[in-house]
Amino acid sequence: MKNQIILEPIGVIHTPHGQIEGMPVQPAGAAGFTGKAVIKKEYVEGLTDLDGFSHATLVYHFHKAEGYVLMPVPFMDTKPHGVFATRAPKRPNHIGMSTVRILSVEGDTVTFDGADMLDGTPLIDVKPYFPKYDSPPDSKSGWLDTAAHKQCCNVRSDNRFM
Amino acid sequence: MKNQIILEPIGVIHTPHGQIEGMPVQPAGAAGFTGKAVIKKEYVEGLTDLDGFSHATLVYHFHKAEGYVLMPVPFMDTKPHGVFATRAPKRPNHIGMSTVRILSVEGDTVTFDGADMLDGTPLIDVKPYFPKYDSPPDSKSGWLDTAAHKQCCNVRSDNRFM
Repeated sequence: MKNQIILEPIGVIHTPHGQIEGMPVQPAGAAGFTGKAVIKKEYVEGLTDLDGFSHATLVYHFHKAEGYVLMPVPFMDTKPHGVFATRAPKRPNHIGMSTVRILSVEGDTVTFDGADMLDGTPLIDVKPYFPKYDSPPDSKSGWLDTAAHKQCCNVRSDNRFM
Repeated sequence: MKNQIILEPIGVIHTPHGQIEGMPVQPAGAAGFTGKAVIKKEYVEGLTDLDGFSHATLVYHFHKAEGYVLMPVPFMDTKPHGVFATRAPKRPNHIGMSTVRILSVEGDTVTFDGADMLDGTPLIDVKPYFPKYDSPPDSKSGWLDTAAHKQCCNVRSDNRFM
């Protein structure tokens, strides 16, 4: 196993969220917040045909997160859970992902609805959304099903993960 | 924007696939292939409550991929597409993700169905699957819808991305 994996951003994500407090949690709670993923010039050709997809998963760096908490209390609940059973940003690797609705792909810019990340977030990858890969039927979602899913769209973040 | 993002694997994924040729493409084509994600000792507490979820998204390193191709011909089609409209491993950042069915979580090991990655793959993150976040309704999937989705489960990889 390699000990280190070195990534370089492929671009940057612009959103209306200049600070962590008050941000929506997850794209499901961020409808109406438009973001722009701007790709570096040398990678723009790689966006070809993305406009045929309604959604994409953006993979990005939680660039303001420092360190990790193994048993965080996530925004969606009042009890701690293992970090790998949450989407909390203070993880061993500060990688976030959000499946967002594509509004347009023009030149170097993917405009999307569901912006739930900070302005200036470094973009690592864009993956096309395909239900056959990404939406297993008959799923269950543990504490998220039982504790908090009804309130997802009103939850806002605070500074617990700064 | 930071120029480099340095990750360290949180563990390793063991699968029946010792080489790239002949591997299934995506978990939808890998049903019946069992994998084991083994987490480093210092992170095992972070798996708490993951057993309540039926599925998780594994984020990992395409550790055998070198370089990138902006217009690859993916396994699922005979025409080139922009790399960000495909899941091809030769991407600017060699990050893969697969949403798999959790069979068990015991100690440091998550056993799962849908192993579509190489044996020895470095594990970067585990995210719980939650349809409200990860399964937007009314999606469309461009070339994947039209060209190849009917054949997904029989497609096998070859050495084009080695």
